[in-house]
Amino acid sequence: MKTSAAPLRVTVWGENRHEQRGDERVRRHYPDGMHTAIRDGIVELLGDSVTTRISLLDDPEHGLTEEILSQTDVLTWWGHMAHRDVSDEVAERVQNHVLAGMGLIVLHSGHWSKPFTRLMGTTCTLRWRNEADRELVWTVLPSHPIAEGVPHPLIIPEQEMYGEHFDIPVPDELVFVSSFSGGEIFRSGCTFRRGKGKIFYFSPGDQDYPVYHHPDVRRVIANSVEWARPAEADRQKPFLDRYETDWFLSGAPGQGVGDADAAGK
Amino acid sequence: MKTSAAPLRVTVWGENRHEQRGDERVRRHYPDGMHTAIRDGIVELLGDSVTTRISLLDDPEHGLTEEILSQTDVLTWWGHMAHRDVSDEVAERVQNHVLAGMGLIVLHSGHWSKPFTRLMGTTCTLRWRNEADRELVWTVLPSHPIAEGVPHPLIIPEQEMYGEHFDIPVPDELVFVSSFSGGEIFRSGCTFRRGKGKIFYFSPGDQDYPVYHHPDVRRVIANSVEWARPAEADRQKPFLDRYETDWFLSGAPGQGVGDADAAGK
Amino acid sequence: MKTSAAPLRVTVWGENRHEQRGDERVRRHYPDGMHTAIRDGIVELLGDSVTTRISLLDDPEHGLTEEILSQTDVLTWWGHMAHRDVSDEVAERVQNHVLAGMGLIVLHSGHWSKPFTRLMGTTCTLRWRNEADRELVWTVLPSHPIAEGVPHPLIIPEQEMYGEHFDIPVPDELVFVSSFSGGEIFRSGCTFRRGKGKIFYFSPGDQDYPVYHHPDVRRVIANSVEWARPAEADRQKPFLDRYETDWFLSGAPGQGVGDADAAGK
Amino acid sequence: MKTSAAPLRVTVWGENRHEQRGDERVRRHYPDGMHTAIRDGIVELLGDSVTTRISLLDDPEHGLTEEILSQTDVLTWWGHMAHRDVSDEVAERVQNHVLAGMGLIVLHSGHWSKPFTRLMGTTCTLRWRNEADRELVWTVLPSHPIAEGVPHPLIIPEQEMYGEHFDIPVPDELVFVSSFSGGEIFRSGCTFRRGKGKIFYFSPGDQDYPVYHHPDVRRVIANSVEWARPAEADRQKPFLDRYETDWFLSGAPGQGVGDADAAGK
Repeated sequence: MKTSAAPLRVTVWGENRHEQRGDERVRRHYPDGMHTAIRDGIVELLGDSVTTRISLLDDPEHGLTEEILSQTDVLTWWGHMAHRDVSDEVAERVQNHVLAGMGLIVLHSGHWSKPFTRLMGTTCTLRWRNEADRELVWTVLPSHPIAEGVPHPLIIPEQEMYGEHFDIPVPDELVFVSSFSGGEIFRSGCTFRRGKGKIFYFSPGDQDYPVYHHPDVRRVIANSVEWARPAEADRQKPFLDRYETDWFLSGAPGQGVGDADAAGK
Repeated sequence: MKTSAAPLRVTVWGENRHEQRGDERVRRHYPDGMHTAIRDGIVELLGDSVTTRISLLDDPEHGLTEEILSQTDVLTWWGHMAHRDVSDEVAERVQNHVLAGMGLIVLHSGHWSKPFTRLMGTTCTLRWRNEADRELVWTVLPSHPIAEGVPHPLIIPEQEMYGEHFDIPVPDELVFVSSFSGGEIFRSGCTFRRGKGKIFYFSPGDQDYPVYHHPDVRRVIANSVEWARPAEADRQKPFLDRYETDWFLSGAPGQGVGDADAAGK
Repeated sequence: MKTSAAPLRVTVWGENRHEQRGDERVRRHYPDGMHTAIRDGIVELLGDSVTTRISLLDDPEHGLTEEILSQTDVLTWWGHMAHRDVSDEVAERVQNHVLAGMGLIVLHSGHWSKPFTRLMGTTCTLRWRNEADRELVWTVLPSHPIAEGVPHPLIIPEQEMYGEHFDIPVPDELVFVSSFSGGEIFRSGCTFRRGKGKIFYFSPGDQDYPVYHHPDVRRVIANSVEWARPAEADRQKPFLDRYETDWFLSGAPGQGVGDADAAGK
Repeated sequence: MKTSAAPLRVTVWGENRHEQRGDERVRRHYPDGMHTAIRDGIVELLGDSVTTRISLLDDPEHGLTEEILSQTDVLTWWGHMAHRDVSDEVAERVQNHVLAGMGLIVLHSGHWSKPFTRLMGTTCTLRWRNEADRELVWTVLPSHPIAEGVPHPLIIPEQEMYGEHFDIPVPDELVFVSSFSGGEIFRSGCTFRRGKGKIFYFSPGDQDYPVYHHPDVRRVIANSVEWARPAEADRQKPFLDRYETDWFLSGAPGQGVGDADAAGK
């Protein structure tokens, strides 16, 4: 059995704006910020096998410097009202780290975040209604590791409704589909591979409800963090390369050309 | 049987730079430009069921104005040495039209074009060698309409080698896989759905070889143009919308909110 | 544009047992049998572009002789209480015709039919409750031809509930997901390619409700019948074949060996 | 980090007929039988994290009794010339265990074995030539755990050629594609989920070549054995169940009905 001596390094990213704005419901459910509840859930379930760090929108470079990202195995992302305040430069940096192998867990309203929409290539829009619908999360791929130990259905008493059509690429794996008491359905748990990185989108989790204290929601997030672990220690974005005939017989590497225009490929 | 009275409106986009530069091989194979050969192949096989237009990089707005795109059902794209010269604005416009339903056929070196990489979210890099390898294009999804009438294998005597790993999202459908005389393989025919639009990537076709005169290559391109036809006449990009409970019983439409930040969703 | 001169030959297969048994609800909704309603819906929407035939369980060889199947482009299947009465021989014959290119539309309780379970390889079990739940059928792949002209959601006032987990292979394309008033969800519209044939499973349609008179349900079935049209006129099941080196250069066909054991492959 | 205290129980199934027949090449490469080489490779790489057992075609019930299978987490299968000698009863038993969660690794000519074709629902035929082609195995899904530590390409100096079209369902994940010196390609590493079980098909490995001594081939097999580990300790095949409205609120289980005909569903 492979032993993974080094703990998984998780960075929990939070927008932290509803909290600052003093929304009462957010304060009641998340007195220490939503990011803290998300982090606590991961630590509760994964213990010493992870180390965690919290980065916030208002930190310098949003807490996502090149150095921090290069020391992050899996990044979780929660943002809602301030997607625009994330700089394009940092969004591209996150995208590049995912393509180079970093795992990315996108939560709820993060569907409209810059890193996610850049990685998907679509609008990632949806239908919504915030009227405390009951959400039932059903497992449709029971042999998937993210579904391990998750009840069928996972019951969330009150939630914002997110409905189809959800404008994403067809997921590589559809793990969960939710229904809402109003009748809508939503592909609520989706995996995507992009470059060398693994992405999981999980829709439960509005700021108005205590969703990130829900033990089963925490189980899903913890499972997904483990699943998104990079395959390689080495972090390198895919790049263009020219190869001589029979290069693989001699072990000759490619002649790296990072720029097709310049190379006149 | 559904009858499609109106002809399919196809815009053939060409970079047209190798031609201007006077590369001898390009001139010999494509005296009227590569775009002309691509267009001629479509007309040869689809006849009166299509109308075609050619747009070039050096046309105003690269020949891809809002008006032209809104009158285009399927756009084919060939570019190689000047991807950077395509403006971000036009690239985004093409992306938006695909998300709203326009079909897109990306040929060969278009793998690195701005519209394609924006729609994929990945680097779209690959391995290559331009040494006149023989390419064999094998069908792995024989019931797909794009494979209809295509020999197995399709034989291209001389071609640039494109090899794996090709850094794209897992295709929705993998139709063709090529082998090269040097031993490499490549996922050479891939479909992707993005928004309401359908995308087909087909890798054969370097400027140094007469690939777009090859009758079987023309067959693949013509099939893909038909396959990528928009499902709806109406062209609208997916957008965010709020819905009241039981909206579908009363026929009430959503309350459009194009901007989640502004809406405070 | 390809013209398809010959009409599509559709065989509507019905179990016709609830009807004979004299269930009152079945009689009221389907006085001429469920198969007649299914056939009428196809003819209503596809008109002269199809010819139809009805075959029933109690016909000789269940109305599915080699001759009839070889003249069938697309077969629709509805059965519920008498799956066991379908002979293994006929079930295998249907499977073979699908692998050779015949389209197959499996309706509702046909999930447990012998041809479908043989083609899927899984149990095809599910959860159920027959308490007149309202079913909402949501489109999750709007650019798919089977979804053309189908409202979002398609509303069925009363239906048997079918719920997850539905033990099928991951569909090649997930077109529809249903919710029920009790809160369950179901992958209600799924495509599968098997051999050269295309299969569509569509779950609405219990004998206790007038589902097959519903105009939108008829639209889905008619769309799927068109979608499942065989790609080739020729009907041949895939077979094992040995090929000499460079066979494709000389146009030499494979040396057919239908039986690996005998061939000592 | 989840600790998996109990070792993974692997059963290596071998046909062991070429060996008995005394084929010289088989004897030279596999003096102790091919199954022994396959088993040794797994033990070499997974060590104490696995326990292994060998079962052979000529053992009572082919060494695949209900008891043995219920104590098997992952089964590997190699057979070639005697698929017919596997009893239908045992083939169905293997299928049922896979649907209930057992992992299955199908090697090379096992593509035509009874358990695999039953699970796939297709013919699983292909093209072939046994002329010592060089096979190059290319990774097309580099972030997949089965590809971890596998060179790109994996080079097998001499192999039987297996070519497309390979008549399988579209794989859930395509991990490897091979090319052969004759120019053919083959989807050589494919995953499938069926019921609760995970299946990996890997094509390298004819009896005429020392493929199962190749360190990289051993790496792939060992990776796949780990990947196919059952998600649940409990081994139960999916079954039909009826559920009352709101059953999930009260924690009431389904009312099991194993037989839809009897139940009059």
